[in-house]
Amino acid sequence: MINLKYENGKLTILDQTLLPNEEKWVNINTKEQAYDAIKKLMVRGAPAIGVFAAYAMAVFASGNDIYDLKAYLDSSRPTAVNLSWATDRMVNAYKAGRNLVDEARSIQDEDIEMCRKISEYGLSLLKDGDGILTHCNAGELAASRYGTGLGPLLLGKEKGYNFRVYSDETRPLLQGARLTSYELEKAGVDVTLICDNMAGQVMKEGLIDAVLVGCDRVAANGDAANKIGTSSVAVLAKHYRIPFYVLGPYSTVDFTCKTGDDIKIEMRDADEIKEMYYEKPTALKQTKCLNYAFDVTDNSLITAIITDKGIVTPPYDKNLKEILK
Amino acid sequence: MINLKYENGKLTILDQTLLPNEEKWVNINTKEQAYDAIKKLMVRGAPAIGVFAAYAMAVFASGNDIYDLKAYLDSSRPTAVNLSWATDRMVNAYKAGRNLVDEARSIQDEDIEMCRKISEYGLSLLKDGDGILTHCNAGELAASRYGTGLGPLLLGKEKGYNFRVYSDETRPLLQGARLTSYELEKAGVDVTLICDNMAGQVMKEGLIDAVLVGCDRVAANGDAANKIGTSSVAVLAKHYRIPFYVLGPYSTVDFTCKTGDDIKIEMRDADEIKEMYYEKPTALKQTKCLNYAFDVTDNSLITAIITDKGIVTPPYDKNLKEILK
Repeated sequence: MINLKYENGKLTILDQTLLPNEEKWVNINTKEQAYDAIKKLMVRGAPAIGVFAAYAMAVFASGNDIYDLKAYLDSSRPTAVNLSWATDRMVNAYKAGRNLVDEARSIQDEDIEMCRKISEYGLSLLKDGDGILTHCNAGELAASRYGTGLGPLLLGKEKGYNFRVYSDETRPLLQGARLTSYELEKAGVDVTLICDNMAGQVMKEGLIDAVLVGCDRVAANGDAANKIGTSSVAVLAKHYRIPFYVLGPYSTVDFTCKTGDDIKIEMRDADEIKEMYYEKPTALKQTKCLNYAFDVTDNSLITAIITDKGIVTPPYDKNLKEILK
Repeated sequence: MINLKYENGKLTILDQTLLPNEEKWVNINTKEQAYDAIKKLMVRGAPAIGVFAAYAMAVFASGNDIYDLKAYLDSSRPTAVNLSWATDRMVNAYKAGRNLVDEARSIQDEDIEMCRKISEYGLSLLKDGDGILTHCNAGELAASRYGTGLGPLLLGKEKGYNFRVYSDETRPLLQGARLTSYELEKAGVDVTLICDNMAGQVMKEGLIDAVLVGCDRVAANGDAANKIGTSSVAVLAKHYRIPFYVLGPYSTVDFTCKTGDDIKIEMRDADEIKEMYYEKPTALKQTKCLNYAFDVTDNSLITAIITDKGIVTPPYDKNLKEILK
């Protein structure tokens, strides 16, 4: 993994908050450090958080009550469903008397396998030389290997494909600049960084053959929540007749959400828009901001949803269930 | 004017490069300072540059050869057509023995009158309480008063309209944050700053009744060049069935450009995306960027072009000429 190492009882992570300017590996020597690493987003991305928490459980189980340890780690980022899922699994392994490091490794291996499947399905829809637009970061830094949205590009690189990738910088938190362009550059993939408002222009110029994005949650009808700006990219892709693919684990489909209207969109602080990362504020103190963390892409804009169980095409309300049969 | 003062032979400008964090008025005591003010974008926007250069010609004419002075000021920003247009006019006034300050004042008054006409035509299409999305800055800071794209909002404020304005921050140079949100806030207009990638979301939520943008050049068929990102906003507006209005002086129509394909799009430096305004670079040194300064909005996406000669609706190839009859 490019974001985590476990060797001889020692857990080490790449501090993603310092990317792309500094590649600093941090030893996780205490459970408090593990808690902070999640809370401070040094490790991020649902699958990566799960794997990290699993190893942290294995490393710090001795000398700690396993239930307390789970509760403590879970509280570092309460909304991360994958975190409590992974720590639950570690508790069950403990109760069953299984080796905890083996269990963490299983979680990691299963994640790699899931990402590989998504990547292979995704790659089957692309051809060598394609221009690909992506938004935010759904790559190896957020998972154990390959990632989801970037998976076909990283697997493709291994197989000798040459893609031209265009990465939206993804304001306000700049995951597309700081993480996606960084990890594709490191992997030797041809990547070009653009501002979010340039996505339409690269499409208009004929540079884009497909759009690949990750997803945070998919409703039963195929409406997909992902980083703010994703749905605008989907509208542009439809206008310019470019396929728009959403990639994610099948477990991202939430059948309790009938449509995207059931997905609540988190609003974040104005300072992220006006001050974060900048030398000086970009607007007056009193200026209001609307800072949507996510948006929902309507299923009518999505060409296919690519999961570890296969490629799902419309009608999604029927086919998201059918794919399991 | 909120960006320029001329009193008793003294020319003073608001340094727009320091906005919104500092409101610093700078005395222009020498022709070299006038040159620098244009070159360093302390004064910006085609109409504002023209008015400023006219006053500078009036102030520094004595003791300088008028032709040398014109050539010197013109060289501060060679691509600004309005700059050499204004200095030409001052040279002609000088040759005709007219008072140069009066001539500069005429240029300014004519600009105010033009902006007022655009603003009135624009306002006739809006209603009290409307939600308006704008991109980049086409306001009073860029002109003598009202501006073009923001003109109906500022004139409307004077007339008691209450608009809710949403301003795209407009990466990478952030004119929407630094200038538009600043000047609307100062004018008492209700303004909310958003990231460029949130424009689709505010439309989807039903917050937007119309989009108003300026333009740098309009082709004979109505294709309109403006700040990068404008054409994407137009695609989104069409998708969400929201009127999309382009506002500018009739002189912006360039009949020598048959279509938008004849308008060359300036590419700018990668550092503007990765480094400008930021505390630290947002991507690796070797990461490539595409930095389009402008894009061209297809005439099929434009509901109307609002000029000082009137409101032009499709078909533009016919109606842009008809409006003069």
